[in-house]
Amino acid sequence: MAQSSRIILSIIVIIISISFPSALASQPFKFRRTPRLSGRFSKQTKPQPQPQPQHQQQHQYETKYYEQRLDHFSFADLPNFQQRYLINTEHWLGPFHLAPIFLYCGNEGDIEWFAVNSGFMWDIAPKFGAMLVFPEHRYYGESLPYGSREEAYRNATTLSYLTAEQALADFAVLITDLKRNLSAEACPVVLFGGSYGGMLAAWMRLKYPHISIGALASSAPILQFEDIVPAETFNDLVSNDFKRESTSCFNTIKKSWGELISEGQKENGLHELAKTFRLCRDLSKTEDLADWLESAYSYLAMVDYPYPSEFMMPLPGYPIREVCNKIDNSPEGSSILERIFEGVSVYYNYTGKVDCFELDDDPHGLDGWNWQACTEMVMPMSSSQDASMFPTYDFNYSSFQEECWKKFKVVPRPRWITTQFGGHDIKTALTLFGSNIIFSNGLLDPWSGGSVLHNISDTIVALVTEEGAHHIDLRPSTPEDPAWLIEQRETEIKLIEGWINYYQEKKATSSM
Amino acid sequence: MAQSSRIILSIIVIIISISFPSALASQPFKFRRTPRLSGRFSKQTKPQPQPQPQHQQQHQYETKYYEQRLDHFSFADLPNFQQRYLINTEHWLGPFHLAPIFLYCGNEGDIEWFAVNSGFMWDIAPKFGAMLVFPEHRYYGESLPYGSREEAYRNATTLSYLTAEQALADFAVLITDLKRNLSAEACPVVLFGGSYGGMLAAWMRLKYPHISIGALASSAPILQFEDIVPAETFNDLVSNDFKRESTSCFNTIKKSWGELISEGQKENGLHELAKTFRLCRDLSKTEDLADWLESAYSYLAMVDYPYPSEFMMPLPGYPIREVCNKIDNSPEGSSILERIFEGVSVYYNYTGKVDCFELDDDPHGLDGWNWQACTEMVMPMSSSQDASMFPTYDFNYSSFQEECWKKFKVVPRPRWITTQFGGHDIKTALTLFGSNIIFSNGLLDPWSGGSVLHNISDTIVALVTEEGAHHIDLRPSTPEDPAWLIEQRETEIKLIEGWINYYQEKKATSSM
Repeated sequence: MAQSSRIILSIIVIIISISFPSALASQPFKFRRTPRLSGRFSKQTKPQPQPQPQHQQQHQYETKYYEQRLDHFSFADLPNFQQRYLINTEHWLGPFHLAPIFLYCGNEGDIEWFAVNSGFMWDIAPKFGAMLVFPEHRYYGESLPYGSREEAYRNATTLSYLTAEQALADFAVLITDLKRNLSAEACPVVLFGGSYGGMLAAWMRLKYPHISIGALASSAPILQFEDIVPAETFNDLVSNDFKRESTSCFNTIKKSWGELISEGQKENGLHELAKTFRLCRDLSKTEDLADWLESAYSYLAMVDYPYPSEFMMPLPGYPIREVCNKIDNSPEGSSILERIFEGVSVYYNYTGKVDCFELDDDPHGLDGWNWQACTEMVMPMSSSQDASMFPTYDFNYSSFQEECWKKFKVVPRPRWITTQFGGHDIKTALTLFGSNIIFSNGLLDPWSGGSVLHNISDTIVALVTEEGAHHIDLRPSTPEDPAWLIEQRETEIKLIEGWINYYQEKKATSSM
Repeated sequence: MAQSSRIILSIIVIIISISFPSALASQPFKFRRTPRLSGRFSKQTKPQPQPQPQHQQQHQYETKYYEQRLDHFSFADLPNFQQRYLINTEHWLGPFHLAPIFLYCGNEGDIEWFAVNSGFMWDIAPKFGAMLVFPEHRYYGESLPYGSREEAYRNATTLSYLTAEQALADFAVLITDLKRNLSAEACPVVLFGGSYGGMLAAWMRLKYPHISIGALASSAPILQFEDIVPAETFNDLVSNDFKRESTSCFNTIKKSWGELISEGQKENGLHELAKTFRLCRDLSKTEDLADWLESAYSYLAMVDYPYPSEFMMPLPGYPIREVCNKIDNSPEGSSILERIFEGVSVYYNYTGKVDCFELDDDPHGLDGWNWQACTEMVMPMSSSQDASMFPTYDFNYSSFQEECWKKFKVVPRPRWITTQFGGHDIKTALTLFGSNIIFSNGLLDPWSGGSVLHNISDTIVALVTEEGAHHIDLRPSTPEDPAWLIEQRETEIKLIEGWINYYQEKKATSSM
């Protein structure tokens, strides 16, 4: 296998993981009976330079650093750290015009990725005369406490300040100070975020209403906690995405797990499996392969975009259709596992350049999202017997807790997020409360099941697209955008415009 | 001097200080040029049993303890502590009726005091079929981390978790768990609080909207930070309270500081001053006496109630009128300082039982509110030249910071509260945002100047009474209540009733 193809595969995997690593982190797995916490798909690395399409080349930003407290909520004497943020003021019309500031709530990864790939913000900044600011989430990218990644991730003590509340406070402190330094105190801030970043944007608007005038929270599964939505939701939705393309495809995948197990149990079975799936090295246990397959399906559901996607990885439009096409139409006489291999090759090897597949990774590598999943972001996930194409699995909190203890020497607080941010009966809780949040979701995205899909009030609204996948609206506009996506973005622009106009008018009146 | 009269005086001083110790903690003082941070008037002690009026005798509650994390916002491995709370379920109609829970946000003192003296909650609980819960604020009363007061207050490290945000999280965690244990998840919570407790109630409603349906924030100076209100406000309001009774009284007090200084500078002057003011022991510096006088004026303004108040201390109705009466009508030929002595005797010795006055205290005694004032609760206070009867003083942040460092080895974060909770341009910030908060204030209360005195929206409303003082509405009803107070409480009851009815109807509809 050529080294280069391995590298590309690795990059692809990292890119996906940045979009939402917890798909893996919390995914149930029959063979292990506890959610997978491996750092494999969420390793933090410096993004590699990639060829960018023409319209992305103008992403110019300054990189700056801001000194933050490690614990905003105590006065403990801890070392400060440097938070990185990217800023673009090219189109900003300045304080005199009360010109807006668009703030992206950095999530679990290198902020440069998010900046470059939140094309929607760059696309609309000129129209709004807006400044763009992208603060990085603490403990990711270059925003590392204790001076280095190694020190920051050393143990539960050094990691203990990696929480969503601290990240929100970072944003609040940074933007408040930045505005003061620019004499832009009166300029309205609009928040953006996708996936976990969308959760942060929504929570930021709820917790710090004085900091921003509104938030676009794209694919933000703020309800994926405790029992707010059924634990089967995520996997059922992934499965539905396959079933809607082809029932036989769904059934083949569903049957494949049994095949995998029985193949793996045969003499020489692991070796045969490695051959069937063209792995670069021998398989030490079946579950590694099953895990690799589950990941592909989950990510395919997330990136089931209607047009070929260049960034996430080379994939055709509606990639699940293509996968199922391969599975269903493999040559006469193909075995179930051969069909499965053909299918996932669409995902892992659409360019055809990969000679063999590398499943290996450092399973003990500590990783930020895994820490978060083991502390606050406890998203219970099961797999139902009938609706799911995955191995049946019931989320078991005790095993989950045990695995977290083993890995980090930390005890999760599974009820903390809902205590802190709410979620149960959100419609009643927020009736009359809060305003100016857009929850946008595509129903193909398995995370949509844990998101807000109905309007909470006149101003906390849900935009739902049947054909959308994971935060597609935040991506740059492309000539292939379908009508519903263009329309969705237009609605978002109109809502944001409404917030800004209302605010500017209010300001103009009050200062008269 | 009889020992008993000293004890009574001491108790009185403690009682007052619980109501709002920062009056002292932040009060400018000409002779020191930095706000006073001594623990004198805010020492935490177990409340002494006191004779209660008839209508207070039915305050029956159970005392319970709840295990809390020391730092809710990190996963640092710290010892938990026991939070005390008082609970009364006598009138509670239970989950089936969606009966409300009235939660008092405990402030800087022993929770038993707040429970017994928030008579309004007890008065209205039967009508609402409400449960009463009074959680104690961490680091006060019996809710002490590290096992004891001594350990908790040992140094800046042990004190570092004494913050408002942690206290709010304590309340959120406690009430969420309590409701779960009582199967009362669906029962609405209404928050109450006075003074700092009122700030907590308002912030709790803003930060944890899913936890409660509304808050009565009485005399809550949430705007007394940075430059939101002029730093002179508090002292100007105290001064106004005197001026409205008598201009000559105001003028006498204003002149008295110069007299004090020149007396104190004379040979044997301190001794003479001690004699004039009937101090139990000699004075070591004039400023101790000045401080004692300033305190009296500030507290008199806070408790300038329209009826004789039995609890705070034995005082006549409108005590400032009485003070000024003494100052203005002292025997012909009385000196300024003699007049002042006659005046403050109304405050410190209305019963006439005190033989001599004890100014002494442990000036280095660490105290919870002083810590809070030196960390988050930085309330700049100055004293204007013309409108104030106090010595002119300009708040100087550097000296303040220096004094805090000297005292606690901690650096204040004067901008943190507004970053965390807002405050600047609150009307614009909360337009369309938030709901169901009553900010009640009496304009005689000097803290009213830092409070919300105008409606923010249809449901975040200000109730202002011209003749009210510090959170008088939370006190038990008495036969002497003036019409405006009865009316104010009726309005509050109607608003609370509205919140509960709306919620219960919404719940009934949504579960149909």
